[in-house]
Amino acid sequence: MAVVVMKFGGTSVASIDRIRNVARHVKREIDAANQVAVVVSAMAGHTNQLVAWVREAALLHDAREYDAVVASGEQVTAGLLAIALQSMGIPARSWQGWQIPIVTDNAHGAARILEVRADDIRQRLSQGEVAVVTGFQGLEPDRNRVSTLGRGGSDTSAVAIAIALGADVCDIYTDVDGVYTSDPRIVPTARRLPRISYEEMLEMASLGSKVLQTRSVELAMVYRMRTRVLSSFADAEAVQPVRSGSEWQDIGTIVCDEEEIVESQVVSGIAYAKDEAKVTIVKVADKPGVAASIFGPLAEASINVDMIVQNLSADGKHTDMTFTVVASELPKTLEVLQAASNGIGYSEIKSSADVVKVSVIGVGMRSHAGVAAQMFRALAEKGINILAITTSEIKISVLINAAYAELAVRTLHTLYGLDKD
Amino acid sequence: MAVVVMKFGGTSVASIDRIRNVARHVKREIDAANQVAVVVSAMAGHTNQLVAWVREAALLHDAREYDAVVASGEQVTAGLLAIALQSMGIPARSWQGWQIPIVTDNAHGAARILEVRADDIRQRLSQGEVAVVTGFQGLEPDRNRVSTLGRGGSDTSAVAIAIALGADVCDIYTDVDGVYTSDPRIVPTARRLPRISYEEMLEMASLGSKVLQTRSVELAMVYRMRTRVLSSFADAEAVQPVRSGSEWQDIGTIVCDEEEIVESQVVSGIAYAKDEAKVTIVKVADKPGVAASIFGPLAEASINVDMIVQNLSADGKHTDMTFTVVASELPKTLEVLQAASNGIGYSEIKSSADVVKVSVIGVGMRSHAGVAAQMFRALAEKGINILAITTSEIKISVLINAAYAELAVRTLHTLYGLDKD
Repeated sequence: MAVVVMKFGGTSVASIDRIRNVARHVKREIDAANQVAVVVSAMAGHTNQLVAWVREAALLHDAREYDAVVASGEQVTAGLLAIALQSMGIPARSWQGWQIPIVTDNAHGAARILEVRADDIRQRLSQGEVAVVTGFQGLEPDRNRVSTLGRGGSDTSAVAIAIALGADVCDIYTDVDGVYTSDPRIVPTARRLPRISYEEMLEMASLGSKVLQTRSVELAMVYRMRTRVLSSFADAEAVQPVRSGSEWQDIGTIVCDEEEIVESQVVSGIAYAKDEAKVTIVKVADKPGVAASIFGPLAEASINVDMIVQNLSADGKHTDMTFTVVASELPKTLEVLQAASNGIGYSEIKSSADVVKVSVIGVGMRSHAGVAAQMFRALAEKGINILAITTSEIKISVLINAAYAELAVRTLHTLYGLDKD
Repeated sequence: MAVVVMKFGGTSVASIDRIRNVARHVKREIDAANQVAVVVSAMAGHTNQLVAWVREAALLHDAREYDAVVASGEQVTAGLLAIALQSMGIPARSWQGWQIPIVTDNAHGAARILEVRADDIRQRLSQGEVAVVTGFQGLEPDRNRVSTLGRGGSDTSAVAIAIALGADVCDIYTDVDGVYTSDPRIVPTARRLPRISYEEMLEMASLGSKVLQTRSVELAMVYRMRTRVLSSFADAEAVQPVRSGSEWQDIGTIVCDEEEIVESQVVSGIAYAKDEAKVTIVKVADKPGVAASIFGPLAEASINVDMIVQNLSADGKHTDMTFTVVASELPKTLEVLQAASNGIGYSEIKSSADVVKVSVIGVGMRSHAGVAAQMFRALAEKGINILAITTSEIKISVLINAAYAELAVRTLHTLYGLDKD
């Protein structure tokens, strides 16, 4: 007997037929005497419709009302899945965020889960009832209003519930069959990774891989909750039910502790993010405090700055400062810098959204020197100019011109031996 | 200052434009310094879509899950209206049934309201905030699951909230501009009734007029809550804001105490219901207990029997028994009678859905004799055969062949002086 949390995204519940298919996946686990909680997203397209209505009603709107409207999508799916399960003879009930409750802070639209009171659910699971839980939402601390966790929040709901239930695994069913060494649409030779460490997955998620939401990976990492990514489109019978303590079937991708990965490689994957924009502030004074005069106002405006490069000063008095922001925040960034121009002092501002960030990720980098040098050399050989660099213990990211994105990703994929045979 | 409850049905909130129009109606009352609670239905068509999904998931389904799914429609409208009001500078918040709470019994899908805890709302109304309340739903006594009141339940929600708030009036905005002496699609000379008594409105609602839900009228009658039916399609500025104690504008129809109606007429309206079916059980024994042997099994099967006629026995030993049921329950009725045939004993069963019930309604009948005689004579003169009759203190209903429906309604409308000049 294992306790399993299964999460199904919007495309996996897009129609009643798809919901029945989800029910078959759940039935497989129940037939194996497992205890199952299922977390569901809204039917694909449903949330977009709700968001569009809210925006049509008012572009500037009360986040609490946005949440009240948008949270309704998951309620529909949860009820429908409970009905589909019951019609297969499986006891089930739907749980809305406030009914459990999943208590969040009051940052409506992007709330964080504070607590999952799973006692009732745990007791009912032990009686063989499936808990069908609405993803993406919770209850504010005042216990009267619905909150939502932001787009993609259902992954985080699933991991939080898995932690609260002490589940053996949190299975995230999606429309891809696992995490790949790179985006298969760009790199035809990309391979599915049977396992990936929490740390690597976190970098992948932050760097543009859309498979798991970043916060869900953070949460899984902190609580060491084994999380598996697999496809809901696979035949429900082709997947082996979860068994506590036994070997794992080679299906999907298991996100787990580094120690559980036997044949670890230096580099696990190549990610890229196209929604970057580059800003260069030309001829700022090369003196202490100039960085604060630039990045202070940006931080106050809640603009996240990613990579920062300061050019060598030619005259010892002036320098150029280059940094990146998310492309959608470029207009706001330029506005803030204009407003702060007196405080900063510069000759001009250049900007471009025609850039892409390519990242090499792998826990093996910690013990292998030379990964970065290899990378820079390979890109130079292809004539690709590096505009900026950032590194962490387990990743190296470079900013390059967007035109070279695919070439760079494929070159690095081959360089680090990730191509499938 | 008055306390006003305003209810808007599905066609009145069918799009964001229509919701903005609703907000203008609310603004008019707020500008007149009234306190306003608004009750909303789901956007037209939305509930039907949700019901269709539930049925597609399983024809036989858990009523609790049905409620969880279907109640989401009103949540969307309530949030959107709150946003539309805020964007006009009017403080507002949405309230879902469980947030107030509106406590109901646990008859899911057709729950009855037990209690409305309106303290929070009352306090916020007094601070000038508009309460936007989801119609049609409440919270089960165990305080964990959503219940719904059944189709049309939002009228009942509105009246219940008006009673809890001690409102001056419960204004039901709909797609018609009031209650008419008869259906204007059949009787072009039908007139809007400026006032109608609770008792008459209750008969009208039960007898096929779709303007107000029967239970909402019952509730309004018991608590003497003045209820007004008016059109949301009218220009918001053409309606005068509610003023405590002052004269009422001649708009819509006020459902109120009989005593408040000055120029009361003997007959107030002619209703008809097409969804009737007639069943005749031929040659049953004419002895005590035979009615119980027929209507006992039907009651057990939850089939409502309306009109009953027992023919005069020709031989003193046998008789024919005729009664009506709602047409949609005819197949089930025949099944039950077949199964009970040994207990009843009959030669054959005849049935027809080709009948219509026409009703004459008016509190004036109490004091005026001869209304029925006049009615039977007028129908006979037109060659219309009466198949069955039922009466109450304030109404007379006859069952006739469906082909004569329009002729009968128009004849009676003229007979009792209801035609407009």
